[in-house]
This record gives sequence, structure tokens and C-alpha cells, in this order.
Amino acid sequence: MTCGTIHGVGLGPGDPELMSVRADRLLRGARHVAYFRKAGRPGRARGIVDGMLRPDAIEFAMEYPVTTEFALDDPAYNQALSGFYAEVTTHLVALAQTGEDVVVLCEGDPFFYGSFMHLHARLQGRVPVHVVPAITGMSAAWTVTGIPVTWGDDVLTVLLGTMSELDLARRMSDADAIVVMKVGRNLPKVRRALELAGKLDRAWLVECASMEAERAIPLAEAGERTVPYFSIVIVHGQGRRP
Amino acid sequence: MTCGTIHGVGLGPGDPELMSVRADRLLRGARHVAYFRKAGRPGRARGIVDGMLRPDAIEFAMEYPVTTEFALDDPAYNQALSGFYAEVTTHLVALAQTGEDVVVLCEGDPFFYGSFMHLHARLQGRVPVHVVPAITGMSAAWTVTGIPVTWGDDVLTVLLGTMSELDLARRMSDADAIVVMKVGRNLPKVRRALELAGKLDRAWLVECASMEAERAIPLAEAGERTVPYFSIVIVHGQGRRP
Ligand SMILES: C[S@@+](CC[C@H](N)C(=O)[O-])C[C@H]1O[C@@H](n2cnc3c(N)ncnc32)[C@H](O)[C@@H]1O
Ligand SMILES: C[S@@+](CC[C@H](N)C(=O)[O-])C[C@H]1O[C@@H](n2cnc3c(N)ncnc32)[C@H](O)[C@@H]1O
Repeated sequence: MTCGTIHGVGLGPGDPELMSVRADRLLRGARHVAYFRKAGRPGRARGIVDGMLRPDAIEFAMEYPVTTEFALDDPAYNQALSGFYAEVTTHLVALAQTGEDVVVLCEGDPFFYGSFMHLHARLQGRVPVHVVPAITGMSAAWTVTGIPVTWGDDVLTVLLGTMSELDLARRMSDADAIVVMKVGRNLPKVRRALELAGKLDRAWLVECASMEAERAIPLAEAGERTVPYFSIVIVHGQGRRP
Repeated sequence: MTCGTIHGVGLGPGDPELMSVRADRLLRGARHVAYFRKAGRPGRARGIVDGMLRPDAIEFAMEYPVTTEFALDDPAYNQALSGFYAEVTTHLVALAQTGEDVVVLCEGDPFFYGSFMHLHARLQGRVPVHVVPAITGMSAAWTVTGIPVTWGDDVLTVLLGTMSELDLARRMSDADAIVVMKVGRNLPKVRRALELAGKLDRAWLVECASMEAERAIPLAEAGERTVPYFSIVIVHGQGRRP
């Protein structure tokens, strides 16, 4: 019997029409579908494919361990996560070894800050793995603003809202075009860093790009709002344009 | 009569299966298809959609003016390009005003260093414009390497091979993950900059990601080869991973 393949399939930013033709085909044909989710939640990636799966698809929800009792820099936090990834990897490998293919759902592009990367590293060399790239959340986000993100020789710097305020500000000062991922609760910090870098007036906040709740506004007008998980901050480049 | 829409449709990195479902649908239904090309060439974007267009599709090849006699920083170069963009924009607007939709083919994502941006800026406010984001060349490129590009808090810096060696080296030194676009003839300079930044040994060269001529090798092993237009250099991030 030949071993099955684990497909890490990028779903794109959320709109099912922005999935690749390949992702669409793999998903609709999949007998085994796996995805991460928080315990008790339907799962963000799973939500994107609602109505697309085969009626007889077998779902494997990979539920993150509850780690709220740990600080992010507590080694116990890393250990809990690491144990969890090892465990679901074991399940996926066993499934593939019975000859079954498995589609693992990934938000955006799997190799760009994706959780699938933690499985990929552990699956390597054990079973065949196949990754399908996808439209990133940031591509959908700058498209929503209606303004191209990079012109001519503009450097694009992609930052994380989880970085320190000073790191953010330093990188922002030196950047042409900026994308900040993982904004969420970090928005006040991101805003202060943009102010320090003198770029707040050019920044956009994009929520849920390509999804129903899509919204793009100048960040300076965002007030004290709480933003959803799917939020990105963008500063467009201003490079040479004939 | 209602005005037609100009669709700037991102085709993705080259493999037709990596087009979005929306791009695929718009393309196959398009009566008018426009694309840039060099005079006397079939056109790179046009090549990606070979065999997908309606038999009665009307094609509008937007041929770049021959500007080899100008230096890139000669104002006459910018003027020639600018005149060309204005001219094709006039044609597209006139077409839309007869009620026809037009699909403009774009390599990768239209708003990410794309030539469509120059039309988009000129079409704004004259006719309805609709942009379809797409998988970027860089997403396909890091997927081909088989290694995720960014982990944890890794900053991603996207650079252009057209930048100066010192600018490149300075940015590379300060970067976690690096993507260099527009490599082509600039490869020797990009390599020297990576060496200055102490990162040559971690760099990959990816040619024609997701196309027939696809190839990914460590840059240090690339020798003096001439690389195709579709070439990207990648240095993967090494951030925190549980
Ligand atoms: C763990 S990262 C995963 C990124 C994903 N692999 C990609 O390619 O976009 C999650 C972050 O991506 C961003 N994101 C992804 N999709 C988005 C969307 N449709 N709209 C806004 N932000 C999005 C948000 O900043 C979110 O915090
Ligand atoms: C004018 S830029 C257009 C970028 C495009 N809009 C995108 O989203 O990737 C052209 C550059 O993109 C890169 N590129 C685009 N597609 C590629 C592919 N499939 N393989 C390698 N490089 C690619 C090359 O560096 C090339 O010089």
C-alpha cells in the first residue's frame, strides 16, 4: 500500500473565491480534513470552507491546549505547545500510513507565519508533504485599501504586532511600505510606534479583508476600537512612478 | 448604457492551477483581454493564460515603447513611459464607455510591484476598476524551497535587485527573513550584498516558481549562471518555533 500525502492547503484571506483552483479542487475532493482551532470554537480556517466539504468528509479538529495560565516566555508554554504539535503529528502520520490523504486547512499562505509550519517541520521525512501556496491576508488587505502597496524600489517591511514598541518604531522609521500582522490586542502599541516613526497619518487599518466584516479605515480615525483577530495595519510606499 | 468595468486580475505565479477561482472565472468569460508585453514578444502574462481564453476574445496587447536608448534616470525615459500609460488608459476608458468589461492580465498580485498600478492610478475616477489579488511570486518561491519563510516574530524585508549594493547590504544585515525581487541581471550585485551582510550561505535562488522551468538551489552553488526574469532570492527567517 502506498503512503498517503499530507497536503498543507492555503485557503487564502477568507473569501472562498480567492482560493486557488488547486485548493478548491483538493478541498472538495478531500476525505480527511484537519484544522487547528481553539477548544470550544468552530475554528477560523474551518469557517472559510463551510459548505465546500464532501458530506462524508472525516474531520480532525486539532484543538490547541489551553495555555492561558502560562506567560508567553514561560518554557512550560513552549513545552505544552510542542507536546500538542507532536501528538497531532503522530495522528496525521498514522492516518497517512493507512494510505489516506489528508488536507490540512491553513489561513492565508501556509509558509508565511502559519501554524501549519509547526506540523510541516515534524512531518518532514516521515510521510509525503505537499504545500499549496495561497493569497496572503496582506495581499487582500492592501487590495481593499484601493492603493498599491509598493512602487519602484520601495522596500516592504512586514512586522508583527507582538514586537516591542521600540523595535516596531525603529523598523517603521526605516521602512518605505509597512505591513503589520497580528495586530489584534497590540493595536494601541502599533499606533504609538507609528506615531514615534512619524507615519501614523499614512497608516490604514484593515479588518477581515475579503470577508463579510471587511472594513478599511485610516488608522488615525480608528479611535479606541477593539479590532478582530483578522486585522492588518498598512502604510503604502510612495516610490517612483512614471 | 452602463459603463463597463476594468478588472485588474492577478494571475498568480504562473501555474494556472494557482490562479484564484475568481481569476479563473473572469478570464474564461472575458470578451476583452488586455496585457503588457515587450514589442515583438508574446507577453509573459499572456503566456500564463494560454488555452484559457474564449475563442472570440478580443486581445489588446499593450506594447511598451522601446526605451533602450534612455538611461533609467533620464527624464525622457519617464516621459516616454508616462505617455504610453496615458495612451493605453485612453483606449481602455473608451472601451469601458461602450459598456464592455475588460480583463487586464497581471503577473502575481496586481498591487505588489505590478505594472497594472500605473494604469490603476490613471483609471481612478474615470471608469469602475476592480482588482483581484493573487498569489505572489514570492509565496510560490518560498513554497518551492520547502522551508517556511517566517517564524514567530521574524521581520520579513522585501528588497529589489535594482537597489544599490550598499543599500541592499545594509537592509540585509538588519533583516530576519529576506526576499529579493527583480533579481535578473542584478544577481552578481545581490550576491555581493548578501556576502557583505554575512547571509550568502543561507540564501536560496528560485527561478520560475510554479512554472515548467522551476528550479530552487542554494545561491552559493549557483555559479555565474544567467537567471531568467522570474527569479527571486530568499533568506529564510529563523525565529522562535515551539
Ligand atoms: C498567524 S498569521 C497567519 C498569516 C497567514 N498565513 C497569511 O498568509 O496571511 C495571522 C495574521 O494574519 C493576518 N490576516 C490573515 N488574514 C487576514 C485577513 N483576511 N484580513 C486581515 N488580516 C488577516 C492578521 O494580522 C492575523 O493576525
Ligand atoms: C514587476 S515584479 C511583479 C511582481 C508580482 N506582481 C508578484 O506579485 O509577484 C516582477 C518580479 O517578480 C518576481 N516573480 C514573480 N513571479 C515569479 C515566479 N513565479 N518565480 C520567480 N520570481 C517571480 C521576479 O523577481 C520578477 O523580477
